[in-house]
Amino acid sequence: MMQFSKSVENMQPSDIREIGKLTADPEVISFAGGMPDPEFFPIEALRKVSDLVLQEDGKAALQYNATAGYLPLREKIATRMTNMGMQVSAESIILTSGSQQGIDFCGKVFLNEGDAIICESPSYSGALNAFSAYLPEFIEIPTDDQGMDMAALEKVMASKSSVKFIYVIPDFQNPTGRSWSLERRQKLIALANKYDVPVIEDDPYSSFRFEGDRLPTLKSLDTENRVIYLGTFSKMLCPGLRVGWIAGGIEVLSKIEIIKQVADIHSNSLTQREVAKYLELYNLDDQIKGVTKAYKKRRDIMVDAMKEFFPSECAHTKPEGGIFIWIDLPESLNAREILLEAVKEKVAFIPGGGFFPNSKKENTIRLSFATMPDEKIKEGVKRLGKVLKKALTK
Amino acid sequence: MMQFSKSVENMQPSDIREIGKLTADPEVISFAGGMPDPEFFPIEALRKVSDLVLQEDGKAALQYNATAGYLPLREKIATRMTNMGMQVSAESIILTSGSQQGIDFCGKVFLNEGDAIICESPSYSGALNAFSAYLPEFIEIPTDDQGMDMAALEKVMASKSSVKFIYVIPDFQNPTGRSWSLERRQKLIALANKYDVPVIEDDPYSSFRFEGDRLPTLKSLDTENRVIYLGTFSKMLCPGLRVGWIAGGIEVLSKIEIIKQVADIHSNSLTQREVAKYLELYNLDDQIKGVTKAYKKRRDIMVDAMKEFFPSECAHTKPEGGIFIWIDLPESLNAREILLEAVKEKVAFIPGGGFFPNSKKENTIRLSFATMPDEKIKEGVKRLGKVLKKALTK
Repeated sequence: MMQFSKSVENMQPSDIREIGKLTADPEVISFAGGMPDPEFFPIEALRKVSDLVLQEDGKAALQYNATAGYLPLREKIATRMTNMGMQVSAESIILTSGSQQGIDFCGKVFLNEGDAIICESPSYSGALNAFSAYLPEFIEIPTDDQGMDMAALEKVMASKSSVKFIYVIPDFQNPTGRSWSLERRQKLIALANKYDVPVIEDDPYSSFRFEGDRLPTLKSLDTENRVIYLGTFSKMLCPGLRVGWIAGGIEVLSKIEIIKQVADIHSNSLTQREVAKYLELYNLDDQIKGVTKAYKKRRDIMVDAMKEFFPSECAHTKPEGGIFIWIDLPESLNAREILLEAVKEKVAFIPGGGFFPNSKKENTIRLSFATMPDEKIKEGVKRLGKVLKKALTK
Repeated sequence: MMQFSKSVENMQPSDIREIGKLTADPEVISFAGGMPDPEFFPIEALRKVSDLVLQEDGKAALQYNATAGYLPLREKIATRMTNMGMQVSAESIILTSGSQQGIDFCGKVFLNEGDAIICESPSYSGALNAFSAYLPEFIEIPTDDQGMDMAALEKVMASKSSVKFIYVIPDFQNPTGRSWSLERRQKLIALANKYDVPVIEDDPYSSFRFEGDRLPTLKSLDTENRVIYLGTFSKMLCPGLRVGWIAGGIEVLSKIEIIKQVADIHSNSLTQREVAKYLELYNLDDQIKGVTKAYKKRRDIMVDAMKEFFPSECAHTKPEGGIFIWIDLPESLNAREILLEAVKEKVAFIPGGGFFPNSKKENTIRLSFATMPDEKIKEGVKRLGKVLKKALTK
């Protein structure tokens, strides 16, 4: 009989990936996945750069490579981050297999069993699952439309000496779509400095802003090299290539480089060169602009349809960017039960419970508006509205 | 101040990767790396398949994919393994980022702090480092030219109830180049069955046999689904693509799928399709045959040169395949000190100490004959022989 580790016994299969399997039926209008729309993938550009890289640099691209990743790509990322107001050099960046791997490494580098970590309530389930492997104590801090509740955060930090890090997604958060105000960002950094706690800033979505001014990342407010920043090309370019990065101080990066060595030696070196070549020959910001425009339209269609078809008892966010909308249902409703009815009506979503490490609020729903074509969004919201109204009359 | 986990504090930077940095000088004849020779990478074939995959299947290839990996590639791997005598279906295979990731996952799925694991003495340092993150107790079993010492193994297994797994590389082992006899393979399986312990079989090299008959893998002798088999295309095709796999029983694979979800969601899906397309359009066995022929010639040149130039006090293996030769120096010598002298003479190797989890025998050396062109091998061995003779006369 195989005896497994406490670590793996403490981990849950991802709701999102499990529900993905349920909704393979092409008739289902799915708001479940958190993926970008493949219609926008720059396939022809990637064909060109892939061929160029193999032609010009094939031997090196196919050989074992430096653990930290392809230096020219790290330089280009450093330049992008600098342009966003963050002081980062290529040496303080390690390329990872998507930002998910960066999340897992943050757990591995900091956590002993029982260590406390702070996260938003709700937070990204993939991060909660990754951290769970290291058997921490999760402390959820309530959030509202301005971000994390700073009074609640300070209360915890003042009373708890063993907090290993704070994990947050300040821009167009997964799962709520909400963004933090400038004031809350500044306050978080001030508290982290005061109580000497590292901050992990997960930023897959900030490039996709529909309206309003771009706000500074936590990393750009950080004067003490305390923020570990996780970036990714998964939403900006495409996820299949699995190119993300982790940026931070040299002390923590040198530890993470050792973790990366034993985790997988290095990430795909052909793909890293392809992304670097893409950034050299094409304009990623134009690519992002096109996608953002499409997502904004879909956000508008979804929000308008929710006004038209949703019961008034269901509150929802109206995100200024990203790909997610969050729904708070009346407490009497359970989103997992509603999902079963919704799939019968050929519409799907992610029940929100998995986004809470402890409180598991099952009367919540995450919708993505990124992958469904415009005309299906309205129809899907209509179907979901019908299911919700029926559930409320039971 | 950042407080790191016990886990990362217990890990060592890889000697191999560190020495790789030292030997960047093109004048150095390096026997240090464990990489394949890039001269044999099928670059033109990969250009073709890469273009075909993006043209025919770009959207799916660039999108998020199933955690277990691209099914047609898993099917092709299952067929290859079946042809090697192993009963494996696509459902019992998960694609990983090289076999290194499979090694790390085996640590994560089985190990709690203090658990005992058994390995060969010496064993692959990258595996020892990966397992170290989970704070196990390592038990080294002595090895000879026939493989692991079975009497010593049984003694440990009979007295120790908490062994979580046995990790071995039965074919052309890293670092010694040795292969296990059939009898030892059968005995290991019998003991694992008797004491009910999982076996991890790491098999990057068995395809590269220079002479003698292919021996059955442990997995093909396994009637109880007890062997977890780690495979990789890194040596057969090229390492930069990071395509490996883990094959095992459904119980352990379902746990490893959860670990994979949180580790990096899935591996590069474009590359998985490229490898599948390569296997469809080209003959991997022809590719392997060509590489094997070249490596055999280099093994011969290296062994002949060792006879000519090495002091007689230095014993070495003569592997029947793979890429490594192992040297036992007299106990008075320290290979790390010899490396410093060797680099001055422009020849490099890996000191063997890092391949022992506990005993750290520093009078050992690993050489690879895979990447140096024929003419440089003789010259490099000559230089190393000179350094060794000088060290012996001190």
